Amino acid sequence: MSLNPVISMLGRRLRLAVIGGGPGSFIGAMHRQAARLDNRYELVTGVLSSNPERAKKAGEEIGLHPDRIHVSVSKMLKAESEREDGADLVAIMTPNDSHFEYAITALEHGFDIICDKPMTNTIEKAEILHQKVEETGLIFCLTHNYTGYPMVRQAKEMVQEGQLDKIRLVQVEYVQGGKADASKDPLPSEKSSWRYDPAKSGPSLVMGDIGTHAHNLIRFITELEIEKVAADIGTIIPGRKIDDYAGALLKFTNGARGNFWVTQAATGVENSLRIRVSGETGTLEWEQEIPQRLVFKPLNAPAQIRTPNGAGTLPLSARSSRIVAGHPEGFHEGFANLYTDAAEAIAARISGKKANPLALHFPNSLDGLLGVRFVDAVIRSSNADSKWISCA
Amino acid sequence: MSLNPVISMLGRRLRLAVIGGGPGSFIGAMHRQAARLDNRYELVTGVLSSNPERAKKAGEEIGLHPDRIHVSVSKMLKAESEREDGADLVAIMTPNDSHFEYAITALEHGFDIICDKPMTNTIEKAEILHQKVEETGLIFCLTHNYTGYPMVRQAKEMVQEGQLDKIRLVQVEYVQGGKADASKDPLPSEKSSWRYDPAKSGPSLVMGDIGTHAHNLIRFITELEIEKVAADIGTIIPGRKIDDYAGALLKFTNGARGNFWVTQAATGVENSLRIRVSGETGTLEWEQEIPQRLVFKPLNAPAQIRTPNGAGTLPLSARSSRIVAGHPEGFHEGFANLYTDAAEAIAARISGKKANPLALHFPNSLDGLLGVRFVDAVIRSSNADSKWISCA
Amino acid sequence: MSLNPVISMLGRRLRLAVIGGGPGSFIGAMHRQAARLDNRYELVTGVLSSNPERAKKAGEEIGLHPDRIHVSVSKMLKAESEREDGADLVAIMTPNDSHFEYAITALEHGFDIICDKPMTNTIEKAEILHQKVEETGLIFCLTHNYTGYPMVRQAKEMVQEGQLDKIRLVQVEYVQGGKADASKDPLPSEKSSWRYDPAKSGPSLVMGDIGTHAHNLIRFITELEIEKVAADIGTIIPGRKIDDYAGALLKFTNGARGNFWVTQAATGVENSLRIRVSGETGTLEWEQEIPQRLVFKPLNAPAQIRTPNGAGTLPLSARSSRIVAGHPEGFHEGFANLYTDAAEAIAARISGKKANPLALHFPNSLDGLLGVRFVDAVIRSSNADSKWISCA
Amino acid sequence: MSLNPVISMLGRRLRLAVIGGGPGSFIGAMHRQAARLDNRYELVTGVLSSNPERAKKAGEEIGLHPDRIHVSVSKMLKAESEREDGADLVAIMTPNDSHFEYAITALEHGFDIICDKPMTNTIEKAEILHQKVEETGLIFCLTHNYTGYPMVRQAKEMVQEGQLDKIRLVQVEYVQGGKADASKDPLPSEKSSWRYDPAKSGPSLVMGDIGTHAHNLIRFITELEIEKVAADIGTIIPGRKIDDYAGALLKFTNGARGNFWVTQAATGVENSLRIRVSGETGTLEWEQEIPQRLVFKPLNAPAQIRTPNGAGTLPLSARSSRIVAGHPEGFHEGFANLYTDAAEAIAARISGKKANPLALHFPNSLDGLLGVRFVDAVIRSSNADSKWISCA
Repeated sequence: MSLNPVISMLGRRLRLAVIGGGPGSFIGAMHRQAARLDNRYELVTGVLSSNPERAKKAGEEIGLHPDRIHVSVSKMLKAESEREDGADLVAIMTPNDSHFEYAITALEHGFDIICDKPMTNTIEKAEILHQKVEETGLIFCLTHNYTGYPMVRQAKEMVQEGQLDKIRLVQVEYVQGGKADASKDPLPSEKSSWRYDPAKSGPSLVMGDIGTHAHNLIRFITELEIEKVAADIGTIIPGRKIDDYAGALLKFTNGARGNFWVTQAATGVENSLRIRVSGETGTLEWEQEIPQRLVFKPLNAPAQIRTPNGAGTLPLSARSSRIVAGHPEGFHEGFANLYTDAAEAIAARISGKKANPLALHFPNSLDGLLGVRFVDAVIRSSNADSKWISCA
Repeated sequence: MSLNPVISMLGRRLRLAVIGGGPGSFIGAMHRQAARLDNRYELVTGVLSSNPERAKKAGEEIGLHPDRIHVSVSKMLKAESEREDGADLVAIMTPNDSHFEYAITALEHGFDIICDKPMTNTIEKAEILHQKVEETGLIFCLTHNYTGYPMVRQAKEMVQEGQLDKIRLVQVEYVQGGKADASKDPLPSEKSSWRYDPAKSGPSLVMGDIGTHAHNLIRFITELEIEKVAADIGTIIPGRKIDDYAGALLKFTNGARGNFWVTQAATGVENSLRIRVSGETGTLEWEQEIPQRLVFKPLNAPAQIRTPNGAGTLPLSARSSRIVAGHPEGFHEGFANLYTDAAEAIAARISGKKANPLALHFPNSLDGLLGVRFVDAVIRSSNADSKWISCA
Repeated sequence: MSLNPVISMLGRRLRLAVIGGGPGSFIGAMHRQAARLDNRYELVTGVLSSNPERAKKAGEEIGLHPDRIHVSVSKMLKAESEREDGADLVAIMTPNDSHFEYAITALEHGFDIICDKPMTNTIEKAEILHQKVEETGLIFCLTHNYTGYPMVRQAKEMVQEGQLDKIRLVQVEYVQGGKADASKDPLPSEKSSWRYDPAKSGPSLVMGDIGTHAHNLIRFITELEIEKVAADIGTIIPGRKIDDYAGALLKFTNGARGNFWVTQAATGVENSLRIRVSGETGTLEWEQEIPQRLVFKPLNAPAQIRTPNGAGTLPLSARSSRIVAGHPEGFHEGFANLYTDAAEAIAARISGKKANPLALHFPNSLDGLLGVRFVDAVIRSSNADSKWISCA
Repeated sequence: MSLNPVISMLGRRLRLAVIGGGPGSFIGAMHRQAARLDNRYELVTGVLSSNPERAKKAGEEIGLHPDRIHVSVSKMLKAESEREDGADLVAIMTPNDSHFEYAITALEHGFDIICDKPMTNTIEKAEILHQKVEETGLIFCLTHNYTGYPMVRQAKEMVQEGQLDKIRLVQVEYVQGGKADASKDPLPSEKSSWRYDPAKSGPSLVMGDIGTHAHNLIRFITELEIEKVAADIGTIIPGRKIDDYAGALLKFTNGARGNFWVTQAATGVENSLRIRVSGETGTLEWEQEIPQRLVFKPLNAPAQIRTPNGAGTLPLSARSSRIVAGHPEGFHEGFANLYTDAAEAIAARISGKKANPLALHFPNSLDGLLGVRFVDAVIRSSNADSKWISCA
């Protein structure tokens, strides 16, 4: 493993432009820390506000040169595309309804992209965006960051190796308590209120926020596609305009069955993303709150606790950990793995060299499209008395 | 707590007749150990086989006097009802399809009953049996033994006390791996093969075996009723005649939503019965594999680990533990709690005295009826493209 | 496994006499429940008080026939030894300082013994008692009940099989909080005050109460003897007459090193008895608060979670569990295992038949003697500036 | 919390010089990642080898400008001290025996220091170095990185707030398996062989490597000093020249007692650093392998699970976490906290402004001195038949 050198195939760090994620933004800090951890990126420009004064203050706070602090995405993209030392890629971390426009514009200017999930708010836009990515051949990395955890990647590799044989049963839950207390919902005047406005956050808050993570996690580990869903989605806390829970029964294309449960209204629960994947010869269990443990329950043998860089670690997992066994890594390291993988892919694309195949497992625009389709199918099933609806 | 003296209200131990559960039977041993632990019962008679020789051998092995070893349930019941020192109650632990007949006969002869779950294989029989219990005023205890665990009872009491306020979300899973390996399914000639024959095991093996436990656990803790289900049930392992998984989305009469998932085909999983109940002011989490821990996650306060007889223990929970905090109790103690509670109720009925109200929380024939109705609703929804079906 | 039939080699249950452990006694209830669980015993007589009225009331409450309720141990033993249907064995559960006298008298009358730990308060008495047991050939079972847990027995067997190869390092802790709050120490007038009086509880309360359990657990699992200790023992809570913590460094006869730490003054801790045994090829970790899990960490392979009757279960462990994997057993079942094993040994002795060798692993008078010697060595080292002192 | 802006009091990032920790070095990567995470540092110069060719290659790989790649520490320090834009501080990550010389030289040239532990190999050097730090008033940060974990800091604050009242009992273990397999000890020709040479690694490998971490953790959380030790230290694996285990009994200046156990020879154990601190009104338990959980066991109330930014989080802990509750942080974030705190202290010193007091809890040269003294006391006690030896 050599995650640390800065000298990429390009002989330099990649130049990063950010759209959104100013100093006060939780997700903005995550992105910048992720970009820094392995030193593959240099933050060179950004649009942090449409208000020039606020943009200037925010840009300086995150270390941008005043000349490269912008208030218009299209102007920034144009300017950067004309510079010799212009940005190599843009990272988009704005409200969900703007991802599409910024991403399309960035692609048109030839930029690779790192984009927050959900990719878009509608299937139509997701399809257009995905097609555009395909046409341009540019790199599109969607930040389903839980796929960056070493033990999630170990799970994927164990499935790939056939250690579970044919997969039969999949359970996933993503349960949070962050929206359990309705008295803390933001006022329309507050910055985070966009999440509570379906026009901006999309057709389903809970699905956009965490449901797409759970969906992606299933697909990442199992490499199976969901054929159909029978779903129920709604608002458990009276008076809200947005969904705060969703449940679904799943049928996979290989015949496996599954269960899906997400909510942000489970009082006191912090961030319980858990998955159990059962195949003919074993079951895998992982929970995000103790991400350094993967439990493997083989048929007719004792259950095993797998850890990053512990015995039996497979190559993708090994590449995703920066440390010897027993030293937990967390959210930032997982997020950074997506950035570092994307850097490899982008540098390879630019240089015309071949990327390390292990770097190419980050979620992309197809994953984004399938996520948006899944949200749509859940809603349609729920609206149809929970009958089975195709995800295709 | 005074669980140990033998001197019940009757001044003696209760005289127990058993139907089924011979020496080789797992569940038979559980029943007998449960009956012995608190010394409220004396095993006096039983039908362990219809074959006289086998009945004799089995009866002697479990300590029955040769004169009180029977091969016919009706003859035993008649004989015992005519003895001065005849049995006070019968415990039924035969295949599911026989519960109804034996229970009805026992009630007709005036015996109180402890009966294995599921109560019956059909709604019709469940309704008749429940009505018969109501009419006779006899005690009917259904062995949903997980309700006997001290921390399950603590959960119920915390809900009763309003520590969660209004319940909003319920998740339950009961996941086992015991039927994951189809090559171990019994041959038709083997004793346990009745479970794989729908005629004997009922319309759904997985629901009868463990689904009714999960259903009962929800109702026991939350004291809510399930209004409707949207469900999927089937066989994930090709070639079997019986179900091995079921999933359902739930709507409760109070508006709460829920998720239900049971399977016996999850390779390597031992006995993962888990429940999470979320209300406005807190969430409870319990898992059967570490039954001495109940996690309480209050709104805006740190999560708590509750233990039997630890700080904050409520009366029903305290009564259900035989030991000081920190000394785990297990499956047998929970099962014994049902027996001990039933003994209190039966002795009270016989003596005309008033039972300790804390003893009266064991599952009864109404719980049995609702369990059978739930199984039926799950199957009907699954057959109706997983549309919502009323459980009433 | 056939733990359940009552028909021992003698064709009947063993007749049990109890000394101490009346209805209000925690440990008395444990003994009686342990005796009942597998139905190998019939409680026939006892001395529960030297006050006739209290003795009568207590005896009736635990189900003794009035004629066999005694107030004098020697008279009971004499009377029972003269009856055709007299007691087979006595169980001693009185304050520590009386174990010696009762045990010697019982042996002189030809009774087998089940005795609470610590065996005696002095080395001299322990040596005499052990020698007497040896001379008489009677069975002496010391209730180091934690050795009855299936996974403790599994650990012993894994060591015996050489799965750890040569043992190098041993850590044990037994940490409780029961005596953390000095304001709850009993008044001299209270019944439990004997524990706080060194004349009755012995030279060290914490060592007698729990230190001997920790010492015995090390020896039971590792089958190694402790050669020397360097120890510190004392009272962390001012004003007490009795010890409430002890620590020791250990050297084993095979060269292994160890660490020992016990206290009853750790506020809020329930019953944390934990052991870690490391050998050349693996480490075992067990904790009493989750007794159904044994973690095995082999060299160069993933850590394993072992469970009762799970994959890899060895014979002694299998014999010690009454249920299929995934159904936790607890304190009572472990305690009952000692009773059931002792029943096998006693019935074999009486009948002249050969006991199942798996039944013969219960702690005996030699274990008791070594425990008392260990307590003494810890005290002597502590008094000698913590220098190394031989345990021999 | 505002850990992310780069604009320190100096209006710029601090300029970092590194000594040791080239691209192949585990600890070098940790330092550089820690320096990058919060963007307070800019790596500008370093000595990575005394061999010019290797130094050049390594320097380029970590992004140094060729002009600022050095092969002599003293030359680098001189050159940097003469530059207008010279380094602000040096980070030392070389073998233990060289820390002293490099640190003294750096102080003489006026550089602040971040230094790996143990600070030095001898008490004499530790005293001189500590005195030099005091005299110069320069910042010295010793990388006892476990003190950077949010929940370790939370524990410290709970103690400070008196939530435990007077501390009575302390247990610490640091158990690893990395040196359990003697066949993997490096050959003298291998780079890591310096650890196995007492001349370079110091008087005790296990104490220098991990014992000083355990010692520091006790002091960091409890803010107590150890008065005396009775200890045993040695080599459990035959043939080694260096220690691989150490145990000690502890007496604190406030009267508390403690237990200390460290080893690197526990087969299969990864990195089990655990501490339990008990006071009159509560006990805290923390383990490094699940660092995001701190268990608090108050007197007469249920045990609590504390998490970063969960309910009850205190200011120092809050400042040490970059994310909302439920998203685990790991080793890198903890390490980065030391770097970020040191940056605050250094920028304050340089600018003459006042640092945030919460930033000033990183281990310093006094901690380093006390650590070296503790190692010495452990060895002396072990050599004196484990008698009590003063740590002063």
